[in-house]
Amino acid sequence: MNGAELLIKTAIEAGVEVCFANAGTTELPIVTSLDKTSGIKAFLGLFEGVCTGAADGYGRMLDKPAMVLLHLGPGLANGISNLHNARRAKSPVLTVVGEHATWHRDADPPLAMDIESLARTVSGWWRTSKSAPEIGADVLEAITATRLGQVATLIVPHDYQLAECGSSNVKTSDGPFDSLDSHAIKAIASRLRGSRKVALMLGGRALRRPGLDAAVRIQKAIGCDLLTQTFPGYMERGAGLPIVERLPYFPGQATAVISRYQVVLFAGAPEPVAFFGYPGFRSRILTDEQERMTLCTDRQNVVGALENLADALGAPSHLPIGDNLLAGQERQAIPDGKLTAEKACLTLAAMQPENAVIIDESATSGYLYFAPPPWLPAYSFMTLTGGALGLGIPCATGAAIACPDRPVINLEADGSAMYTVQALWTQAREGLNVTTLICSNRSYRILQVELVHAGNTSPGPNAQALTELTKPPINWARIAQGFGIPGVTVSTAEDLAQELSNAFTEPGPHLIEMVLP
Amino acid sequence: MNGAELLIKTAIEAGVEVCFANAGTTELPIVTSLDKTSGIKAFLGLFEGVCTGAADGYGRMLDKPAMVLLHLGPGLANGISNLHNARRAKSPVLTVVGEHATWHRDADPPLAMDIESLARTVSGWWRTSKSAPEIGADVLEAITATRLGQVATLIVPHDYQLAECGSSNVKTSDGPFDSLDSHAIKAIASRLRGSRKVALMLGGRALRRPGLDAAVRIQKAIGCDLLTQTFPGYMERGAGLPIVERLPYFPGQATAVISRYQVVLFAGAPEPVAFFGYPGFRSRILTDEQERMTLCTDRQNVVGALENLADALGAPSHLPIGDNLLAGQERQAIPDGKLTAEKACLTLAAMQPENAVIIDESATSGYLYFAPPPWLPAYSFMTLTGGALGLGIPCATGAAIACPDRPVINLEADGSAMYTVQALWTQAREGLNVTTLICSNRSYRILQVELVHAGNTSPGPNAQALTELTKPPINWARIAQGFGIPGVTVSTAEDLAQELSNAFTEPGPHLIEMVLP
Repeated sequence: MNGAELLIKTAIEAGVEVCFANAGTTELPIVTSLDKTSGIKAFLGLFEGVCTGAADGYGRMLDKPAMVLLHLGPGLANGISNLHNARRAKSPVLTVVGEHATWHRDADPPLAMDIESLARTVSGWWRTSKSAPEIGADVLEAITATRLGQVATLIVPHDYQLAECGSSNVKTSDGPFDSLDSHAIKAIASRLRGSRKVALMLGGRALRRPGLDAAVRIQKAIGCDLLTQTFPGYMERGAGLPIVERLPYFPGQATAVISRYQVVLFAGAPEPVAFFGYPGFRSRILTDEQERMTLCTDRQNVVGALENLADALGAPSHLPIGDNLLAGQERQAIPDGKLTAEKACLTLAAMQPENAVIIDESATSGYLYFAPPPWLPAYSFMTLTGGALGLGIPCATGAAIACPDRPVINLEADGSAMYTVQALWTQAREGLNVTTLICSNRSYRILQVELVHAGNTSPGPNAQALTELTKPPINWARIAQGFGIPGVTVSTAEDLAQELSNAFTEPGPHLIEMVLP
Repeated sequence: MNGAELLIKTAIEAGVEVCFANAGTTELPIVTSLDKTSGIKAFLGLFEGVCTGAADGYGRMLDKPAMVLLHLGPGLANGISNLHNARRAKSPVLTVVGEHATWHRDADPPLAMDIESLARTVSGWWRTSKSAPEIGADVLEAITATRLGQVATLIVPHDYQLAECGSSNVKTSDGPFDSLDSHAIKAIASRLRGSRKVALMLGGRALRRPGLDAAVRIQKAIGCDLLTQTFPGYMERGAGLPIVERLPYFPGQATAVISRYQVVLFAGAPEPVAFFGYPGFRSRILTDEQERMTLCTDRQNVVGALENLADALGAPSHLPIGDNLLAGQERQAIPDGKLTAEKACLTLAAMQPENAVIIDESATSGYLYFAPPPWLPAYSFMTLTGGALGLGIPCATGAAIACPDRPVINLEADGSAMYTVQALWTQAREGLNVTTLICSNRSYRILQVELVHAGNTSPGPNAQALTELTKPPINWARIAQGFGIPGVTVSTAEDLAQELSNAFTEPGPHLIEMVLP
């Protein structure tokens, strides 16, 4: 076998099943190898940000890496933004980038770039393979890094892809985690027993059902509140799951929430900081007086740590669904009349099907979707973790490929949607069950809000040009149709309800432009 | 004034007139400043690659920098591919990137990235401003770098944008060029007088009319041929201008062309290398036996060097338009019948208006457009210099903003078009005279060709999935309409001629999908 075949065979043996790709000439041996050993299905993205965002969505859903295959430096560059979001989501993504043949690189051909400088900006692990036989071990090291919730980037020169090498005899490494420190966890337990007003700040795998189960046990034992960061990568929510409050976006509001607590225990979540540095506000949301405890490192298993802590606190091992668990209570009524952002969120909440996956990149419009107590069937919820616009449509694409039997709903701002709109085509090609709800307020509304915050209350023509999405308005239905997706425009809650009903009934992707004030 | 105002005021004083922007919260002081001092008009791109590609197109047309304004690391990352193309085109681009406030950066907020690592991959000059008062000098240094044909990237922390500082009193620096070495040029002249079979390889500013005039004088004096690289950034062509041959794309063909010559004199062009490293072919197209001479460095004025060389060769100072100059000879007839790539190219050549600007990102489909002797009125011709797909639509947008009175024609592959399709909206908003011709062969045809070259003659399902753009076909007319542009689909040469006639007559942008086999 050659290096490309070794790469694919090793990835398959390590459990990789999908590859989101936009390949070029330097990756063709890998493309050819994808058909030589069965086990990986390739999905074409018409732009690299589609591929990386889809891999992030897939990784968040299944907690296992998809492979991404990109073309040289420019291909990686186009995928960086969504790799940045994946990094902030602690999502497992295996990125493979072709490189010019080693003997050709010094000639500085037109496409040559410093690929490693790009890779290091988003990757917890990155390497350029040094020979064909080493590619097997490189792939396994990369996959081990992804299991710690990292983006891993492997750069593979074209001549090494083509070079003959021995067959794969690399063993999958052991689990990626460092062992837990039971003494430290017991010490935390005894500190917590003497503390009042504790917030348990959950992140990463702690927001999946096993972590949440353990968190509820801790909550019962010490009466803490459950919080998470403003933009969690993935959380499970709804009936049978506890209420976990997200910290508000603006630092003043976030400080108001966190100031209720004397102690904050971090379990898989970073210490909260302001999204931007606003004059007059601190970077960190907690004050110096508030006590911080960290349950475990990023290299330890946070779910095991939460369970150990619950045990150390003497919490009961099984809990019935209680008062603070959302038990599929009665749905709210569907609103009517001219659509607003609030009515759009309430309509969705009222109609959301069982076992849905919600990807929220709705910026200002969708904030209310999360805010009211969600008396909803259990669902998965994902957000824009790294603030790099253009996650939603690709992430929904990857989530639907990961979980083809679940309805995927992408609540998407019109500004953000445009960054990686090409992902709609992959949804059409694969017939994915994704409903894209475009929150069409025809502006970068958050920037208009921030301009006022910054004292610019009467924007001039340039500031208007850079924050309005009018002249012309984007016709989202036409764009969806251009990509092969049924697209409609609605401006009342009744019409939205009707179109949602259609979308949730008919298989395949749908796009609904919700015209909002 | 504050740092943001100093930045804009300095840029205006240095001659910057346009800003292609996709700003965020960290750039809002700069956005506000764009309305405080008149002189720069801002253009919104709905994706950062639109902004950087438009700046490249503007810079190639006017040989002066546009400003680009981008949001933090992810914004720069999204713009990198087209900055890479600009770098390879030696196009002047001033990139300004906002950064978190210096006091906020260490908190590692969600959008934080290593912006300088991104910037260095494409920039001849880059810097993070160290204080508000220094921003003026930073901008001028950056602009000086652009005048050498470089991308210059200035990163400006938010707190320095807001900080008060003195007014701008920085003087524009002298011209960017090192002085010419007249002894070296005379030595080249005497070597050339004794040489047979000389190729003059032109690049950069040498492909504009003053450089071409000097090249023709040299040609008359020593009988050399005029060549340029496969993908020149900008060249003037057609009636009254000399024939300059482009080197073919594949190394075997390029070697066949270059092997005619004993001596190759480089004037603003790099030594030609294969686009990719193909097994069995060398990286460099010239053999070791061929003599190479370099007329001047990248930091010297190539036009002056060509003129000095013509003088040193005793060439006549004025030349009538001669046999080898394209004197607006009779146009070819318009073909008819079912469209092919060749017929599409011939139809365009037959109908191309006076003084057109052609942006060619057509990959395999449009290669024939350049190939036959172009008996055309004078026009400007631009190509995909760096191989990073997605240049065409943004570049056409910037070219039309630079030269609103010239018809801009973008010959665009369907695969490439999709990378930065959002630029169509900016064309609609600004009412630009751009005709986009989508070469819709519904495949990554070049990759299909390369797969066969690489020995994969019966691609499996994964290789097919990654090279075909069918299932579903993209409906380009709908997509154009979604962005506010009249869009049509044609499949015969007659219909193409009719639609071209409409597009060249009606003001504003048009898109024509040419369905090709």
